[in-house]
Amino acid sequence: MATAPSVSYSMTIRLEVPAGGPAVSQITTVVESSGGHVTGLDVTASGHERLRIDVTIAASSTAHAEEIVQKLRGIDEMDVQKVSDRTFLMHLGGKIEMTSKHPIRNRDDLSMVYTPGVARVCTQIAANPDDARRLTVKRNSVAVVTDGSAVLGLGNIGPAAALPVMEGKAALFKRFAGIDAWPLCLDTQDTDTIVEVVKAIAPGFAGINLEDISAPRCFEIEARLREALDIPVFHDDQHGTAIVVLAALHNALRVVGKRLEDVRVVMSGAGAAGTAILRLLLAAGVKHAVVADILGVVHAGRADLAQADGDAPLRWIADNTNPEGMTGTLSEAVAGADVFVGVSAPNVLSGADVAAMADGAIVFALANPDPEVDPAVARRTAAVVATGRSDFPNQINNVLVFPGVFRGLLDAQSRTVDTSMMLAAARALADVVTEEELNANYVVPSVFNERVAGAVAGAVRAAATAPAAGTTAGGTV
Amino acid sequence: MATAPSVSYSMTIRLEVPAGGPAVSQITTVVESSGGHVTGLDVTASGHERLRIDVTIAASSTAHAEEIVQKLRGIDEMDVQKVSDRTFLMHLGGKIEMTSKHPIRNRDDLSMVYTPGVARVCTQIAANPDDARRLTVKRNSVAVVTDGSAVLGLGNIGPAAALPVMEGKAALFKRFAGIDAWPLCLDTQDTDTIVEVVKAIAPGFAGINLEDISAPRCFEIEARLREALDIPVFHDDQHGTAIVVLAALHNALRVVGKRLEDVRVVMSGAGAAGTAILRLLLAAGVKHAVVADILGVVHAGRADLAQADGDAPLRWIADNTNPEGMTGTLSEAVAGADVFVGVSAPNVLSGADVAAMADGAIVFALANPDPEVDPAVARRTAAVVATGRSDFPNQINNVLVFPGVFRGLLDAQSRTVDTSMMLAAARALADVVTEEELNANYVVPSVFNERVAGAVAGAVRAAATAPAAGTTAGGTV
Repeated sequence: MATAPSVSYSMTIRLEVPAGGPAVSQITTVVESSGGHVTGLDVTASGHERLRIDVTIAASSTAHAEEIVQKLRGIDEMDVQKVSDRTFLMHLGGKIEMTSKHPIRNRDDLSMVYTPGVARVCTQIAANPDDARRLTVKRNSVAVVTDGSAVLGLGNIGPAAALPVMEGKAALFKRFAGIDAWPLCLDTQDTDTIVEVVKAIAPGFAGINLEDISAPRCFEIEARLREALDIPVFHDDQHGTAIVVLAALHNALRVVGKRLEDVRVVMSGAGAAGTAILRLLLAAGVKHAVVADILGVVHAGRADLAQADGDAPLRWIADNTNPEGMTGTLSEAVAGADVFVGVSAPNVLSGADVAAMADGAIVFALANPDPEVDPAVARRTAAVVATGRSDFPNQINNVLVFPGVFRGLLDAQSRTVDTSMMLAAARALADVVTEEELNANYVVPSVFNERVAGAVAGAVRAAATAPAAGTTAGGTV
Repeated sequence: MATAPSVSYSMTIRLEVPAGGPAVSQITTVVESSGGHVTGLDVTASGHERLRIDVTIAASSTAHAEEIVQKLRGIDEMDVQKVSDRTFLMHLGGKIEMTSKHPIRNRDDLSMVYTPGVARVCTQIAANPDDARRLTVKRNSVAVVTDGSAVLGLGNIGPAAALPVMEGKAALFKRFAGIDAWPLCLDTQDTDTIVEVVKAIAPGFAGINLEDISAPRCFEIEARLREALDIPVFHDDQHGTAIVVLAALHNALRVVGKRLEDVRVVMSGAGAAGTAILRLLLAAGVKHAVVADILGVVHAGRADLAQADGDAPLRWIADNTNPEGMTGTLSEAVAGADVFVGVSAPNVLSGADVAAMADGAIVFALANPDPEVDPAVARRTAAVVATGRSDFPNQINNVLVFPGVFRGLLDAQSRTVDTSMMLAAARALADVVTEEELNANYVVPSVFNERVAGAVAGAVRAAATAPAAGTTAGGTV
């Protein structure tokens, strides 16, 4: 499907044109007729003969932006001097920095921040290790850890190429929850080594955010780290996504007037996100779930699961879903279903498939950048449609969740993160949308809604400090 | 020796006293007569009957501060309300934070800092890994890595208790060289694991500062990491100290009019710092060096070295020093020597030992907090005396070196740090002291001398980009 111009493909172009001629008006005409948008136009120097103009455009792709620049070069007497990519400019030299909270102006400051004064603080923590949360940055810091194996939709691009994402994530942690996160991009994709490394670096952090680690390694890494560490470990691609999906589903069900316990949910995708979503939906009360992967509906009798060494996560799915023992294709499973949740691949569902769902159908097509079904097509028959894209309503975006979840965990000084906290986060996020605001195009609040992070944090903190928290009663998904 | 009052033992005490009485004047009298200093006195609330006063005092120890507070309580009608330890206040909640360089105000900002815009930056780095230094925080960031095994003079206090020092170090990196450092306190003291962990976290950093790792593990850890990584690895306790010592020696020799090639240097201490100092002094041109440890002068025939499995670093010392085959005690070795460098233990040298040195003797007694010889005693006969303490002239302080060294390495995008760069750093640091300024009490500049970091950085950058840099010609100490 065609992509609209976006600021993520935004260029600032410095032009010189004759002062008197028609060139200025031609700029806008050329950009718009090429399918781009002019988002800014500044005359930065003006003389009798020539004008210098900085024009900022939004295009739909890098190739599209280059095409527009070529067309600008074609304007008579137009001198294209410099083309700056705004996204690259923002990344130049990195997007985050380390700053000191106190000025170090003189020897007195130095003797308190560093030696000899710091020795007393060290001695205090050595005697009482819990004081590390009071007297160091640990109390407010989260390690954002990746091995670069499953970055965005880009796949296994390695640790260095993953760093811009992890820096962005750190910036979002600060922006939305005041958390000091630092990216750690690991030069290994070995499960044992990753576990050992994260265990080793844990003392300086109050939480671990695992990020963009491919399945199935991410399950084992998270499980082993949760077992080993006394700080919460949260794989955002799994649980952040699951919490937003559950929140959106809570509100979508309010829109169509159905109950979680009654609906039949069909999922496409059994990877990291899919498995986590399924587990959280079941914990929230979903009774009828069916999962399909590339081989069709998952059931205990399927050839790849019948073998003794069959895929363990997939076997868990077979054991905990599909009580009717359904077989066949995704299309067949979706017929008559109330809810579709896709975290798989583009275009696995047709408009006809959606039309065959039950009345008041809910379709979450979350594959990025191209959803399981064109949302415009799905909307023709489904009651509520959500995607992962920012250019459609109801964006399922982890930014709604991870800052608040970690804020709550850190405030509670929680040693774990469990299902009760995630369920509370989803409920709190859903409840940010008021009865008056709720409609089919607004089942999740905006990322920039100032109430989101606080609501999620408060719910997680309350769940983390509730009597059952951290015990087996809380459970873990 | 008695310690003077210091701001590192500084308390702010909130007092309430009668408005009219003699209490205010009594405060200063009590503090000063108890051996403390009043460093601040603010009347923070004033009424007809009562005054509220915040008085800040410097004491010589925690016990001393408590004693002063007790005496203040004894003043008639004095109400002591709250005692705040200024050093602990500065550490509360940590001393550093992560900040974003760009505001994230709206969806446009978000789409450039994070998805979808960030994907283009990732793709660029995946295609051209060197671009990580251009488009991420890597270019300016250093990992400050410790295992907490040899922290300050406190010993093996573990990773959490080491964190205040590492945060302080990160703050100094920023203050003096604009570097973004983040502390990593490792929950392991196993050599293999530390090497594996640092190798794994390296992709996001442009340099590794090893800190407070005990000998002899620190030698192997550093050597293996230098072999494995394409970024410089610098154990500051070794090489930072060595560079400042060499710089101070350059200038002390200018004061006494001797040449490095001619002097006889006796060292006490064969640990991490001692070994690094020795290696750098030899590389700088020292021809006559003798090292003593707890068993006396190191020579090839010593019983502990004669064994096949003798200590390898100590054997290196025996092979590269003491050409005259001297044996015996430190006292015997020091007789007639031109230079003493101690990085060992308090009071291993007497005033008589120093008096028996050659004319124009240079004494660097660096054990902390109590030097190898009382500097006041040493000064009676030695021409130049330096210590590690901030309350004597000529403080040998690593803060003079590590910020500038890493600034130079980062600016040169150096993949290594070698002897040529360290020699250049020492020479540049020495040369910050002008001929006019140079005297026996000023052989190293102040930490707050604004020229220091730039001079060191410039010299290191030049050495790192010189044709021989990074080749074996540069050598490694």
